[in-house]
Amino acid sequence: MNDRLTEKVINSRKIFNGRMISLRLDEVELPNGAVSTREIVVHPGAVAVVPLCEDGRVIMVRQYRHAAGQVLLEIPAGKLDEGEDPVCCAARELEEETGYQASVLRHLSTVYTTPGFTDEIMHIYAAQGLTPAKQRTDEDEFIDIEILTPAQLKYMLSSGEIRDAKTQLGLYLAGVLI
Amino acid sequence: MNDRLTEKVINSRKIFNGRMISLRLDEVELPNGAVSTREIVVHPGAVAVVPLCEDGRVIMVRQYRHAAGQVLLEIPAGKLDEGEDPVCCAARELEEETGYQASVLRHLSTVYTTPGFTDEIMHIYAAQGLTPAKQRTDEDEFIDIEILTPAQLKYMLSSGEIRDAKTQLGLYLAGVLI
Repeated sequence: MNDRLTEKVINSRKIFNGRMISLRLDEVELPNGAVSTREIVVHPGAVAVVPLCEDGRVIMVRQYRHAAGQVLLEIPAGKLDEGEDPVCCAARELEEETGYQASVLRHLSTVYTTPGFTDEIMHIYAAQGLTPAKQRTDEDEFIDIEILTPAQLKYMLSSGEIRDAKTQLGLYLAGVLI
Repeated sequence: MNDRLTEKVINSRKIFNGRMISLRLDEVELPNGAVSTREIVVHPGAVAVVPLCEDGRVIMVRQYRHAAGQVLLEIPAGKLDEGEDPVCCAARELEEETGYQASVLRHLSTVYTTPGFTDEIMHIYAAQGLTPAKQRTDEDEFIDIEILTPAQLKYMLSSGEIRDAKTQLGLYLAGVLI
């Protein structure tokens, strides 16, 4: 069945090579033989972590997102370094952004964030057994931490205060919203 | 507090203007006065729809996603036409991709799909009161329909067969997975 839906690449052209993403323009042959173009944002992949405290609260990060033009409340997340194992990346990003280390990182799901135009894949984990260490954000990251209860998070999702897809999904997958 | 986290745009340069997305390179001043660059994929916005049958089953679409290099099982979705109301877009995409019309479209959530590098915003709806009409996909879309029970969808999510973020989130938001 897959062959009947699959597209074949005829030509591929690199448009831009950036610090975080690159952009490729592919010419593809469609299943009916016609030709179309696909704009593909190439991304190294990412992780997101739901840090669960023993009392059920969740450690969240608040940061300005230039693409969104506003401060968003999110679960900790970050992109994979070249060749980095996703679970190591999850441990690293959790500690860098929140200052906490986890004794357990449990894989919840791996998803394409928006497969209409990017290959970005995101590995989502739950972190447990948290102990405070030291926050060490990247030099261009400015992050506030908030530790919130499931009831607060449910309210903030329904009121529109949590507007980030991976955060909503991670909280559902970790059982926080159920 | 927001001012303390916010970045100011110093310079903005258009890199690419495509059919679906465009790419902008912004130079920003960080809260500490340092300068950094942000690669921003500009997107028109999108909708996704969870089509709920009266018997609890969900109408899903299977299509090849060139960015992912594979066929994915998703909820119906599509991008906004210029100036289009999201709920009209949801009705249109539902009918085009599945051949069903809905008597009720209920807003579930509006999210940034991946705010680290794109302004794409996605409006997610539940569709009810479904009646069959005619599938009318775009000329470069090839889509198979599958109507699946909540038990099948739960299994497919945990087994890794549903790998699309908006699909996992939409099924949770609509109460299908709970």
